[in-house]
Amino acid sequence: MLLHGFFRSSAAFRLRIALNLKGLAYQNAFHHLRKGEQRAPDYLMLNPQGLVPTLETDGDGVITQSLAALEYLEEKYPDPPLLPASLADRARVRALALICVADIHPINNLRVLRYLRRDLDIDQARIDAWYGHWVMEGFRALETQLAGDRRTGLFIHGDQPGLADICLAPQYVNALSMKLDLAAFPTLGRIFDAALRIPAFERALPANQPDAEA
Amino acid sequence: MLLHGFFRSSAAFRLRIALNLKGLAYQNAFHHLRKGEQRAPDYLMLNPQGLVPTLETDGDGVITQSLAALEYLEEKYPDPPLLPASLADRARVRALALICVADIHPINNLRVLRYLRRDLDIDQARIDAWYGHWVMEGFRALETQLAGDRRTGLFIHGDQPGLADICLAPQYVNALSMKLDLAAFPTLGRIFDAALRIPAFERALPANQPDAEA
Repeated sequence: MLLHGFFRSSAAFRLRIALNLKGLAYQNAFHHLRKGEQRAPDYLMLNPQGLVPTLETDGDGVITQSLAALEYLEEKYPDPPLLPASLADRARVRALALICVADIHPINNLRVLRYLRRDLDIDQARIDAWYGHWVMEGFRALETQLAGDRRTGLFIHGDQPGLADICLAPQYVNALSMKLDLAAFPTLGRIFDAALRIPAFERALPANQPDAEA
Repeated sequence: MLLHGFFRSSAAFRLRIALNLKGLAYQNAFHHLRKGEQRAPDYLMLNPQGLVPTLETDGDGVITQSLAALEYLEEKYPDPPLLPASLADRARVRALALICVADIHPINNLRVLRYLRRDLDIDQARIDAWYGHWVMEGFRALETQLAGDRRTGLFIHGDQPGLADICLAPQYVNALSMKLDLAAFPTLGRIFDAALRIPAFERALPANQPDAEA
């Protein structure tokens, strides 16, 4: 498979973790988002949104949108599973993943921060406050849901990492790099620490990618 | 089942369509978002994010996040299907749905527009421009992907409505109510018109809910 990504893209980071967890070999195509390479005509043919990641699969075509690609990987390569077996538990894990995928990440995405800066003349301090606000909102809901549910284990659902851990880890890395105070989220912190001890997560870190910059 | 929603919530609208398409009876609990009823302590116990919808299922617990609930309904009540059979096609439909679910809706959600107004002092004209910008970005990508793919039929994937149509229709209704110029998206318009001719979509319209206001 060929993963179109960028070392700092949280959504590409999700796919790197999933591919690693499932033991799937893949190659990289890098698109530097701050240089606008995601807007190159060739890439827009693959991904008309001009976003990363895009996954070129072995025989199932091109997949845009990271969560669609994660569900695809789960259906095509079910072992080890990223989703639990029961319908109620699957809904729990998907809902927790979506707090990151829909309610934190898109609002803090590069294109949105750029709109705030360029079109609305928002200064950097207020952009940072915006960023922190949506992370804290999402993390508060995640912490509440995890801390109050006995299905939470070493990871978000039981003792093996899955779809929601895959979506949490990149947001947590971003929150650390923004120096947000995460003391109110001990469960998230504990799960993130456990995830980083797994090579599939550690190898997927932005800093460990071939296109990483200081 | 019990659907916690609000007539104007696009995410609750998705669930109303899916429940109707699958012929599932449900009851409503309404939470008036502009009056802040989604922040009532009782409701936050169900949904710590304080967002709608929440689905109380028959025997599978409480589900937050509309896309998690849609996937649950598909797994529990597979007929009629909202997703096609092949893995490649499932990924296509999920990716198109996610353009609405992740890349339009959350950025234009009430809580985000409120933050722009209250915390960043953005005036209504610029908030409307923000709203339109993210709709147009998403719709352009959708139109390109739909118009260039022979799998597009009367609906987004073939001739039956599915997951992506369910996610498009509420965004299209919003775009119309914001009086956006949608002439550049003939495929989306044609599909939306076809959807509204289906009672499952028509009955789910905001204006047709018991809690609707003028």
